[in-house]
Amino acid sequence: MKAFVPYQEAIAHFLAEKNQHKEPRNLYEPIEYILGLGGKRLRPALVIAAANTYGATIEEALPAAAAIEVFHNFTLVHDDLMDDAALRRGHATVHEKWNLNTGILSGDAMLIEAYQFLETYPPELALELLKIFNKTALEVCEGQQYDVDFETRDQVAEHEYLKMIQFKTAVLVGAALQMGALVGGATRQDSEKLYDFGLLLGTAFQIQDDYLDAFGSSENFGKTVGGDIIENKKTLLYIKAFERADADQKTQLQTAYSLTNTDEKITAVKNLFVATGAESVVKTAVKAYTDKALDVLNELSLEASKKELFSAFAAELMVRNL
Amino acid sequence: MKAFVPYQEAIAHFLAEKNQHKEPRNLYEPIEYILGLGGKRLRPALVIAAANTYGATIEEALPAAAAIEVFHNFTLVHDDLMDDAALRRGHATVHEKWNLNTGILSGDAMLIEAYQFLETYPPELALELLKIFNKTALEVCEGQQYDVDFETRDQVAEHEYLKMIQFKTAVLVGAALQMGALVGGATRQDSEKLYDFGLLLGTAFQIQDDYLDAFGSSENFGKTVGGDIIENKKTLLYIKAFERADADQKTQLQTAYSLTNTDEKITAVKNLFVATGAESVVKTAVKAYTDKALDVLNELSLEASKKELFSAFAAELMVRNL
Repeated sequence: MKAFVPYQEAIAHFLAEKNQHKEPRNLYEPIEYILGLGGKRLRPALVIAAANTYGATIEEALPAAAAIEVFHNFTLVHDDLMDDAALRRGHATVHEKWNLNTGILSGDAMLIEAYQFLETYPPELALELLKIFNKTALEVCEGQQYDVDFETRDQVAEHEYLKMIQFKTAVLVGAALQMGALVGGATRQDSEKLYDFGLLLGTAFQIQDDYLDAFGSSENFGKTVGGDIIENKKTLLYIKAFERADADQKTQLQTAYSLTNTDEKITAVKNLFVATGAESVVKTAVKAYTDKALDVLNELSLEASKKELFSAFAAELMVRNL
Repeated sequence: MKAFVPYQEAIAHFLAEKNQHKEPRNLYEPIEYILGLGGKRLRPALVIAAANTYGATIEEALPAAAAIEVFHNFTLVHDDLMDDAALRRGHATVHEKWNLNTGILSGDAMLIEAYQFLETYPPELALELLKIFNKTALEVCEGQQYDVDFETRDQVAEHEYLKMIQFKTAVLVGAALQMGALVGGATRQDSEKLYDFGLLLGTAFQIQDDYLDAFGSSENFGKTVGGDIIENKKTLLYIKAFERADADQKTQLQTAYSLTNTDEKITAVKNLFVATGAESVVKTAVKAYTDKALDVLNELSLEASKKELFSAFAAELMVRNL
């Protein structure tokens, strides 16, 4: 997204300055390290884009953008610990490069630093941002817990799955846009609509992610295809397939899920996703959430040309071209 | 401390209500559990005492008190993880009763919940509280890191040791009093003086804790005497002994610290703490910090009768009679 490049550069620069020379080094070096690994920095770019759209400068939006980005990276450090993941963005994770305790403590310090960025705003605005940030941060923890809980459950309802993916990822996209809008001086109504846009778009993206995990190619997905099937993850494809399967297909699904040959298993499960209609239903859901997100943009009290930034972002995000 | 009993009951009740019925249970049950284990709840009592002194009701002070207490318990959950401690307040620690991931994630949620309590105040006050809270929380993390760092260092300077214990424990006592004072409507100057009182008293308490670890009895200490010596901890006794030892005593200290029989080691090291004068210097330091704390109370713009609550607290804390 070309329009985001100056925002992404500004946030990278701002964060690089922040933890430099802070003591004790064993606490702050891992923070510099994870923040320096990059990533696409889409969330902070969204904060700045929203703030800019409503009239704030990039500089005014940077602390709020940093709060979102540092919080996001805090969740990565602790999630990687909980998953015992060795790699993040192609480099060693913090607990791999240092150790468990560093992962815990540097992560904690990042969460506090995220809050520290909010202090820089005037009282009324700071309090509004704090409320959104608290609610969102707690939902992200709850989403992570639901995800863990679902691993050991046989059945997960569609509304439970949706809540989990929204809490885990979509609410932070919404909060980024809402906080940016407030920094820019948007009305409460516009800020809430931008939140909804982010929530819906984030939901569409996450459902598409699950869809592509089964039906994507390595080009448009980037991760190993079939991972969710191998791990018996209760994605929307899985939930919809069980919901729509007749008695025969239910048995076939159970058989397919118990296969030990992974290639065979992936093929068998995917065939049943198609045969039950789950594949088509989920593809439709992605489109429906994306359309709903775009509809919300129409309700913003902005001139059409300013809304285009957000619709263009949605388009690029959903074709995974960012 | 009799005057604190209504405060301690109010905070226990307030916290017990807070996490009840919150979902997902696997996230919030461990939080209820650790908060329900009790402890003396001195920090939140100090928040309420300070607020009350300047004219706020207990109810008005409860959210700030809860922020301090939930934050403190968050540090216990994560510290216990990092130390792999099995017991806390005589019960299984969170990661022992559940698991590592629950300890991490429920701890994170507690830190966020602590911040959530601050939202309930009017904007100007909320922002002031947020700033104190952020600074203090980050210092507590830094103190924890210094403590870890010092374990693998041969020498620690006195000022480094003091900074470490102040960050690890005393700043939170100061912040509790300062935040309470602000909630009660104290002047900035009075709130800062109460912070200093808490910082100095907390420092005195922590140095006394290290002193009693070597020279206390099981009655006035409550923990196993000699633990710091066995672990070669760089306490003020250790630092002062090395600083004051002549060449002979330095050799004797090194020999004593390398003994493997723990009873012999404790006796030999304690004898040298006395012979070098470190024992007496440290006892004097405890008294000096306590006196400095009490001096600060004189500077508060409060009538004498209202200062008595704080001096009585200091007296009871330092004879460990709370």
